Amino acid sequence: MATVTRRKRKTNREVAKALESLADIVIQAAREGRDPCIQVPVRALSNVSFNKKRGMIEMGNNKTQRTFFNLGMAKKFMQTLLVADALKVLQSENFSTSLREIYYRTKHTIPGTNENTFDDQNESDTVIEDLEVTLSLLREELNVRAAESGSIVGPIVFVEGGDVIDCTRQGKAGKTVPSIVEPGELDIKKVTADFVLIVEKGTQFNRLSEDKFWKKHNCILMTGNGQPPRGVRRLARRLHDEYGLPIYVLVDNDPWGYYIYSVIKQGSINLAFESQRMAIPDAKFLGLSSFDPEKHGLPRNVGIKLTPSDIRRAKELLRYPWFSKRVWQREIKHMLETGLKYELDALANKDFRYLTTDYLPRKLKEQDWID
Amino acid sequence: MATVTRRKRKTNREVAKALESLADIVIQAAREGRDPCIQVPVRALSNVSFNKKRGMIEMGNNKTQRTFFNLGMAKKFMQTLLVADALKVLQSENFSTSLREIYYRTKHTIPGTNENTFDDQNESDTVIEDLEVTLSLLREELNVRAAESGSIVGPIVFVEGGDVIDCTRQGKAGKTVPSIVEPGELDIKKVTADFVLIVEKGTQFNRLSEDKFWKKHNCILMTGNGQPPRGVRRLARRLHDEYGLPIYVLVDNDPWGYYIYSVIKQGSINLAFESQRMAIPDAKFLGLSSFDPEKHGLPRNVGIKLTPSDIRRAKELLRYPWFSKRVWQREIKHMLETGLKYELDALANKDFRYLTTDYLPRKLKEQDWID
Repeated sequence: MATVTRRKRKTNREVAKALESLADIVIQAAREGRDPCIQVPVRALSNVSFNKKRGMIEMGNNKTQRTFFNLGMAKKFMQTLLVADALKVLQSENFSTSLREIYYRTKHTIPGTNENTFDDQNESDTVIEDLEVTLSLLREELNVRAAESGSIVGPIVFVEGGDVIDCTRQGKAGKTVPSIVEPGELDIKKVTADFVLIVEKGTQFNRLSEDKFWKKHNCILMTGNGQPPRGVRRLARRLHDEYGLPIYVLVDNDPWGYYIYSVIKQGSINLAFESQRMAIPDAKFLGLSSFDPEKHGLPRNVGIKLTPSDIRRAKELLRYPWFSKRVWQREIKHMLETGLKYELDALANKDFRYLTTDYLPRKLKEQDWID
Repeated sequence: MATVTRRKRKTNREVAKALESLADIVIQAAREGRDPCIQVPVRALSNVSFNKKRGMIEMGNNKTQRTFFNLGMAKKFMQTLLVADALKVLQSENFSTSLREIYYRTKHTIPGTNENTFDDQNESDTVIEDLEVTLSLLREELNVRAAESGSIVGPIVFVEGGDVIDCTRQGKAGKTVPSIVEPGELDIKKVTADFVLIVEKGTQFNRLSEDKFWKKHNCILMTGNGQPPRGVRRLARRLHDEYGLPIYVLVDNDPWGYYIYSVIKQGSINLAFESQRMAIPDAKFLGLSSFDPEKHGLPRNVGIKLTPSDIRRAKELLRYPWFSKRVWQREIKHMLETGLKYELDALANKDFRYLTTDYLPRKLKEQDWID
């Protein structure tokens, strides 16, 4: 098992204090007649690398200085403190909000000018990411949530928003997974599952949930309709860390599916600073593999021709260090050779319930996954 | 209150029988040496009109004949029976599936030819819609579900998938709303809410849920992250029909928001045949109104300039008969005059909780909605 860093969630007070420390820098500098300066770690490809041993994309140690008495930086400096101030309100009043609402909350015209504090949400989003990495805080600890949510079903009991929720008693559709699942927001009470299965699409989640696959195979099912939202990733990570559950990922057989898996496993380049607490280096790729259509006798006419952009993307993936293992090179090259991609939905060509009754049981029994 | 048609959900057996009736037509025709023929209602703008009295978009009585011994129709005829056959399996084995899986299930190469039964999902989707309207069955009654799902929270208790679910005890994130909410799939046990609020975006749903707005104002909150999925619309319709709850809709102030509201209220042109059981002619538009930014003192710089396509779309809306009321003409024209659209998120400019503490309470108190 790869090394993972465990860390207690910071309390509201600790987060508020970290945010205040930025104001302290300004006060201190003003008192000493100096230019206030914040050290912000560099979030760029130049400062990102793949840590092979830990199996995750990591950020390096390069930092940049953000100062106030510098024509090119003054606005950004002011924006940083404005956002930090808004984020502090979330801590002191103990509620959460979205990136977009922070943008609107901090946007105003600077008195006596025609200049806006922010003209575009990209500006405030960037500042929030700067603060996350500068203060070593997860976005969730800053009480900033995503709009997207996922669904969960299976043998897990947790307390969310003060309610005890038993996910074996959540019907077919399951329970909505909140965006923030840190301890305090979501407290796991009991887990008797043997593993977690993250399913890319709602259709397969519904299929498996309706067929009570989770009951027969004693697992937790989660989905996020496409790229799993942060709440789903963090909850899977917690179940892996805190309960030792293996994590399996089920996606379409196309470059996008491989990519979704890779983000769950080693994190993304854009948000490399979060890998430490978001990535699950032990996550396994259960399927669809480019070899599955043959193994499972899917006719070629349910495959979809790779588009030029699929081919380009697949060739890009081949060059990523985290896909450099022989088994991955073989997997991706085979997709390119057949010239076809397959959706999970195509398994219905065999039988509507083939996924539940044949495909997954055989995969699990034969340990037919990629690590 | 507009007239609504109530109808008991058909049983599996009744639906199966309706599907079989198509096969009977073929057998009967074969015995009599006739060309088998299915009468399919026309689903085109030419056969759609707005019923002002009932307040919904309705389909007319035009039908087209689909026959087998006709070069132009033979394939479509065969496809219709193939899909009907697949849909019958769903009834006899009592499970649900997706449009996409039906496509894959019924796709094969016709023996002895290079011809596929279906080349594109559009073909099978069209046939399913033909069958819905030919047999007067809702897609949900055919056990065909959508991948999208919504979330719900508030004072309602229902049985879903065999589990009793109390939506006052579903944390902040709420319960996932299944795609199929017909009686038998979702049985409502107890409703003590005074009204239903459908919120366009997850962000505002999260805001209101976290603030326990539903508790203070005794209402049910639902969202579907954008255009509400069928399950959310049908559940709102059921709560309106069966429990007499008023339905309020909260969307961004832009042409897309108006359109979302109009689909909830009078149905859509494409799926006019469903209006009878999907539309909620009494649904009320709670906001954002183009007059709200002034009423609530939102600065102009949190508005977003209308794009040329926004303007085109708004002008289109002005010509729709269901927006012909004076109050709607005034509403849409005012948006065009200001040249700005506003997101619900922009209310955060006043205060992160302005939506919960000021905007909605004032709207409800002043009955400041559009019918």
